[in-house]
Amino acid sequence: MASSILSDCSSSATSRLLPLRRALLAPPSRFRPTTAPPRRPLLAAAAAAPLPRARAMASVSSARASSTDSATVSADACSKIIDGKLVAKQIREEIAVEIAKMKDAIGVVPGLAVILVGSRKDSQTYVRNKKKACEAVGIKSYEVNLPEDSSEDEVLKHIATFNSDPSVHGILVQLPLPHHMNDENILNAVSIDKDVDGFHPLNIGRLAMQGRDPFFVPCTPKGCMELLRRYGVEIKGKRAVVIGRSNIVGMPAALLLQKANATVSIVHSNTKKPEEITRQADIVIAAVGVANLVRGSWIKPGAAIIDVGINPVDDPESPRGYRLVGDVCYEEASKIAGLITPVPGGVGPMTIAMLLSNTLESAKRIHKFK
Amino acid sequence: MASSILSDCSSSATSRLLPLRRALLAPPSRFRPTTAPPRRPLLAAAAAAPLPRARAMASVSSARASSTDSATVSADACSKIIDGKLVAKQIREEIAVEIAKMKDAIGVVPGLAVILVGSRKDSQTYVRNKKKACEAVGIKSYEVNLPEDSSEDEVLKHIATFNSDPSVHGILVQLPLPHHMNDENILNAVSIDKDVDGFHPLNIGRLAMQGRDPFFVPCTPKGCMELLRRYGVEIKGKRAVVIGRSNIVGMPAALLLQKANATVSIVHSNTKKPEEITRQADIVIAAVGVANLVRGSWIKPGAAIIDVGINPVDDPESPRGYRLVGDVCYEEASKIAGLITPVPGGVGPMTIAMLLSNTLESAKRIHKFK
Repeated sequence: MASSILSDCSSSATSRLLPLRRALLAPPSRFRPTTAPPRRPLLAAAAAAPLPRARAMASVSSARASSTDSATVSADACSKIIDGKLVAKQIREEIAVEIAKMKDAIGVVPGLAVILVGSRKDSQTYVRNKKKACEAVGIKSYEVNLPEDSSEDEVLKHIATFNSDPSVHGILVQLPLPHHMNDENILNAVSIDKDVDGFHPLNIGRLAMQGRDPFFVPCTPKGCMELLRRYGVEIKGKRAVVIGRSNIVGMPAALLLQKANATVSIVHSNTKKPEEITRQADIVIAAVGVANLVRGSWIKPGAAIIDVGINPVDDPESPRGYRLVGDVCYEEASKIAGLITPVPGGVGPMTIAMLLSNTLESAKRIHKFK
Repeated sequence: MASSILSDCSSSATSRLLPLRRALLAPPSRFRPTTAPPRRPLLAAAAAAPLPRARAMASVSSARASSTDSATVSADACSKIIDGKLVAKQIREEIAVEIAKMKDAIGVVPGLAVILVGSRKDSQTYVRNKKKACEAVGIKSYEVNLPEDSSEDEVLKHIATFNSDPSVHGILVQLPLPHHMNDENILNAVSIDKDVDGFHPLNIGRLAMQGRDPFFVPCTPKGCMELLRRYGVEIKGKRAVVIGRSNIVGMPAALLLQKANATVSIVHSNTKKPEEITRQADIVIAAVGVANLVRGSWIKPGAAIIDVGINPVDDPESPRGYRLVGDVCYEEASKIAGLITPVPGGVGPMTIAMLLSNTLESAKRIHKFK
């Protein structure tokens, strides 16, 4: 996998990859999954009216016409774009409707608690965005901000309080935690029925097992599956390749595809000739955190490509000095794939939408509201 | 996958497949996994002196000379046989040594409790064999036999008693349970630190996740990995195909191979062209319960083949009227594979050996004995 990752496949000769090493060392820490039972529709409304492919395509085209911030979307690939922004917006609207119904019917408003330790700018931004997204759909958000030097016990104390608070239906501990804390201890302390991130091993075990359903499905993989479903991609019997095997994206994505009866292969840093395996896939989920790793030559014509990577590459032409690219070389892949997510605007917007979905699912389950 | 399963690949023109339909409908109920941490050596002794390939081969040849019950072992394949009986015997001897050491050092004898509900002949045989195997290595066995019409509560009561009994380090509920019982409720009641079968979803979740280790690894997949390890098969970076995705064999086997850094694909009943995918594999674990499904043409020359299937096929020439064959057509595969397990005498003997190993591991962990 090594040789191809050092070349930028974009047409911008001036751009070069920025934090490749960082991306390789700690790939998916920026992805924050959540959950809900697989094989069940995300929401009743969505199940009743899944986007048929033609309708999806029409929406995508019109969305593209008004989209000015998806800079990487090239003209010749417009019919293939999976518009994550559009789908996420649609899901948020569906969630808002469901929440309003639940409030009317039983007077319950879903609540999401977020615990943030330290003052990392990126974490603060994520937490702020989650809070805004909650407010927009009618989820009440609860926030605890603790200083960087807090003790593990302080965090655990807040988790315990939220675990027993009946107005809180989801608890999320923003990662990464400071180095002096044990992530495993802290994540395991979140009550299994409020673990909207779906990171608890009990959840993952239930996801892996036939005949069991997890309480929550990690958000980013759930978002990938939802994009495939809403764009009418058949999964059963198809070859699927997941690139990357992180606990929060690659591994659960593979388990979800497997549960949906795809024939799944997992490609990772020890895989030899990953391009040969990837080329066999009807569905590719790339979640490795390496800019432009997946070239056009890796892709089977007509395949559906879900690109989870969000990698900043140096770009002097951009006002910020960098731009974001995926794990897939969009420019090449979009000429070969049948469907492809752009970066940004593909999987990214789905993660928070799925977090909202999981929080709603949790409130419905706790209050037995259907 | 359908066409090839109806032909018997053996040279016996008179034999025909017996309970194919039953095997297809309920494939791996006869496999009873157990567990211990992956990537850690099974036992200190085994880790210190793994069988080098040449030595293993020598052992295999001599074992074959004395083996009269491995009827399917053909003469031209003798250098390729993985001798599960021999390895299992060796492991049981290692376990006996470790148990004697522990008893001498801290006065503790590992204890395994088995709960059997009903009077199925096959279950009674399994339980009897387990008891014998325990006695032979020095594990104390506890047995509860309940009538077929017992209530779920009665089973749960016995589980609770064993959970709190400090002389019991492993608890095993013999499957299948009567239809009026909920397997999930009962298996989940076994304390996670005595779940020597490794079936608890928390165990499976920890097996799936990077950076986590399960308390116990299900026995049959653990046995498969141990055979590969003791025969010097390199796993890291290799292509592996697991055929079948049951909760107790296929799925955990795939997770173990993945944890050992193979590139894993899972083939199942919805897979199209399973032979093409299997032919790419350096390592194949077949655990689907379909007699002779995997033909010679499915196999990459030199591959290591672990055959978990134990399928009875009608054979008038046998005194019992049937004989046992695997999921792999041994006669064809043994001419192409580099290494192959026979049926019987391959994976079968490993399962109970791994159950003993898991019980010992449990006692060592509970009593902090290294």
